[in-house]
Amino acid sequence: MPQDKAPRRPRAETPKGFRDYFGAEVTERAEMLAQIAAVYHRYGFDPLETAAVETVEALGKFLPDVDRPNEGVFAWQDEDGDWLALRYDLTAPLARVAAQFRNDLPFPYRRYAMGPVWRNEKPGPGRFRQFYQCDADTVGAPTVAADAEICAMLSDALEQVGIPRGDYLIRVNNRKVLNGVMEVAGILDPADPDRFAHERGIVLRAIDKIDRLGETGVRALLGAGRLDESGDFTKGAGLAAEQAEVVMGFMAARRETGAATAARLRELVGPSQTGSDGVAELETIAELLDRQGYGADRILLDPGVVRGLGYYTGPVFEAELTFEILDEKGRKRSFGSVAGGGRYDDLVKRFTGQSVPATGISIGVDRLLAALRAKGRIGGEAAPGPVVVTVMDRDRMADYMAIVAELRAAGIRAEAYLGNPKNFGNQLKYADRRAAPIAIIQGADEAARGVVQIKDLVLGAKIAAAASHEEWKSQPAQTEVARADLVAAVRRILDRAP
Amino acid sequence: MPQDKAPRRPRAETPKGFRDYFGAEVTERAEMLAQIAAVYHRYGFDPLETAAVETVEALGKFLPDVDRPNEGVFAWQDEDGDWLALRYDLTAPLARVAAQFRNDLPFPYRRYAMGPVWRNEKPGPGRFRQFYQCDADTVGAPTVAADAEICAMLSDALEQVGIPRGDYLIRVNNRKVLNGVMEVAGILDPADPDRFAHERGIVLRAIDKIDRLGETGVRALLGAGRLDESGDFTKGAGLAAEQAEVVMGFMAARRETGAATAARLRELVGPSQTGSDGVAELETIAELLDRQGYGADRILLDPGVVRGLGYYTGPVFEAELTFEILDEKGRKRSFGSVAGGGRYDDLVKRFTGQSVPATGISIGVDRLLAALRAKGRIGGEAAPGPVVVTVMDRDRMADYMAIVAELRAAGIRAEAYLGNPKNFGNQLKYADRRAAPIAIIQGADEAARGVVQIKDLVLGAKIAAAASHEEWKSQPAQTEVARADLVAAVRRILDRAP
Repeated sequence: MPQDKAPRRPRAETPKGFRDYFGAEVTERAEMLAQIAAVYHRYGFDPLETAAVETVEALGKFLPDVDRPNEGVFAWQDEDGDWLALRYDLTAPLARVAAQFRNDLPFPYRRYAMGPVWRNEKPGPGRFRQFYQCDADTVGAPTVAADAEICAMLSDALEQVGIPRGDYLIRVNNRKVLNGVMEVAGILDPADPDRFAHERGIVLRAIDKIDRLGETGVRALLGAGRLDESGDFTKGAGLAAEQAEVVMGFMAARRETGAATAARLRELVGPSQTGSDGVAELETIAELLDRQGYGADRILLDPGVVRGLGYYTGPVFEAELTFEILDEKGRKRSFGSVAGGGRYDDLVKRFTGQSVPATGISIGVDRLLAALRAKGRIGGEAAPGPVVVTVMDRDRMADYMAIVAELRAAGIRAEAYLGNPKNFGNQLKYADRRAAPIAIIQGADEAARGVVQIKDLVLGAKIAAAASHEEWKSQPAQTEVARADLVAAVRRILDRAP
Repeated sequence: MPQDKAPRRPRAETPKGFRDYFGAEVTERAEMLAQIAAVYHRYGFDPLETAAVETVEALGKFLPDVDRPNEGVFAWQDEDGDWLALRYDLTAPLARVAAQFRNDLPFPYRRYAMGPVWRNEKPGPGRFRQFYQCDADTVGAPTVAADAEICAMLSDALEQVGIPRGDYLIRVNNRKVLNGVMEVAGILDPADPDRFAHERGIVLRAIDKIDRLGETGVRALLGAGRLDESGDFTKGAGLAAEQAEVVMGFMAARRETGAATAARLRELVGPSQTGSDGVAELETIAELLDRQGYGADRILLDPGVVRGLGYYTGPVFEAELTFEILDEKGRKRSFGSVAGGGRYDDLVKRFTGQSVPATGISIGVDRLLAALRAKGRIGGEAAPGPVVVTVMDRDRMADYMAIVAELRAAGIRAEAYLGNPKNFGNQLKYADRRAAPIAIIQGADEAARGVVQIKDLVLGAKIAAAASHEEWKSQPAQTEVARADLVAAVRRILDRAP
């Protein structure tokens, strides 16, 4: 075909940082989300689906992950001059809905939401600008029973999708305890909460990185600063040794039981009212979960969890998968976090001026899918493809389509080859590519005799792999049946134990 | 609470032209799409999910609905200077994928896609800027067997979701026949296809509006022009009377059977090769469908279908629901179109320079849902809400949560009241709002005696509606059971025939 002189052709490219999902990638995610939705439903949570687009005003500047201030949203100006943006999470739209429909919704309002969110950040390996979240939140429930319920539900959801007990831990902490510790360490003054905010930010991020930096690295960041392996220097919070000691003691406060951990935390927060309130909340959560049968083998108090998100005001939770996988360099490492959340009592207040308590969880859908793949729960054996009806004689297309229609009417996944039928080899290659278990063949001769050939491609592949040339030639994987017996014969092969 | 002097609070508003979906609105759509996906799957179609975002370059200017040239996309410029946009349909991303992955995908490639699309157009009543589409397309199949298959699949899908046979019709036409008629009418010159393009556009839109404008209105638009009731004048195509007669004859060509319609069309297109090819394609489609058992009671040839979309090159289809509903003014009218599609052989060529045949269908998800509601197939009886465990004594929250956990573990949807428990009336109002079938009550007295009260709210509402005051006072809808028998007692009430 001659190249015409039209302007340069558009590039057929997925935009940078986005991706396409094919076949099982789509259905596996949909099935996992349906399983999670069933758990959420049982807990009384109702679905909410907001649009992808919000006003920039409604989204506000509550961008998650204060570690990365450059992270932004995809935004544009409307014809009316309004700024619109793609949602960056499912929590900000919930806060908007809770404020907008506060007179219509039942309160407390338990809702779940599943769908894509968008981040205008530099794409990187495994980091995409559109990804799925799966959230559940309770708005309007001041009691930490709501937080405990979220943790229990998360535990059920993980087990429902196929993460066995013992392969995950939900760790619970409380921002108020951390604030109490900050008070004791002298970097939080309840009478002037803005003072030392910068230092507290550094402390928070340092604690969050303990797994990676180790105790020495965190101590350096609490003090003057830290020189990393590449020679970069990160300025520290400038705490004195005894101040740092308080913070380090907090991180090491985890004990065998929730009660022991709480007791140790109570010592650490000492005179701080906020800290004391926080410990009491943790004790209540532990007691509630215990009574519901969720022991420390599933949900436990752990002061090491801080969660980067600036807007949390009380309990925070994180679900971690504890089994080991091999990383890209072949080293064993723990799979890590797949969900996180906490209490955020100030998000709805932005709109209404009135404080509305809220707590919730967000599951990282792609990470949880990756975990299920790593555990062999999904994506193992490729799903069988359709029965492929080949086209020997293009004038008899109606015959082939009638065969396909019969198979489909019997509930059997089937398709005719609809490409150029000239090269029969291409048709068998197509059947192979489609992972077809069976190919149906009917030439003019078979049609005249009222029969069809059924080629068992699964058996054929096994014979080809295992048998000698002589055995292969006898072709037992291909059988001839009467046209009228076609559906029954196909079903017999499909029902055969694999 | 004193108003602080912070800057103006953001408005809690769904952006103009967008909407939020709550509860059953979300699950009903998800269930309908899952049913359609099952049909598509049986036909051998694989799911594809592309991102919401495409490059503007990849989307091109193939905007649907040439009637509304102002209609646009939501677009913005990336930090790298690339223009990105939200997809306006699911076909343009498919064309991009088919070109980009042409060496990896099986061809013919049957794919389905479900998800939101976005249009930057003025919102109006019932017209939203984000809405769902549900598409199925076959790329790489030149044979009209692919078109026939799409029509059969659409028929199956409509019946699967609950539109009974007889309540819908899939009407099939062919752009080539229309082009043949245009040739005969002297407004299409195969040697110079750009000539008369403007006139043909007017003719196409006039035909598309026959239901609304009637024969007289269409004749006016084919000729000098049409003055509408408001006094606005629309310039016509300027056809001479005998030219207009050819076009009108085409629209009136539908006969009792597909064969008779095809015969009449063959007369009309006379010497036009394109027209003759188009008629032959329609005959083949009718024959294929007939052999598969899809008669004219489900799928029929109808020259009245033209479909506005500029990019169709061959067969076009439209699914219409034929039952009557009452419009907003209380007048009976036929429900109308819920799906449409056709063959578009040039979309992939934009990227690769090589023509790739393609055909497909798009279901208007919201319209189909509205149809199912109008038929009473969904949304009739409100789904029962969760069992609500009330809180009589806030110090015994762990007891109430343990009751809820037991119910949930037994697979019963349940929740505790997590608002402020002080006012018990509010708790019962909450249970009512949640459409709770049962409320569980346990005060200190009941706890001491090891029992709970089970309030049958469904039965209670019936008694309140029907019975005398005396009967009501006896409160047979509330029973006391031993705490250990709670789950069994709740299940007995829930399992009761409604």
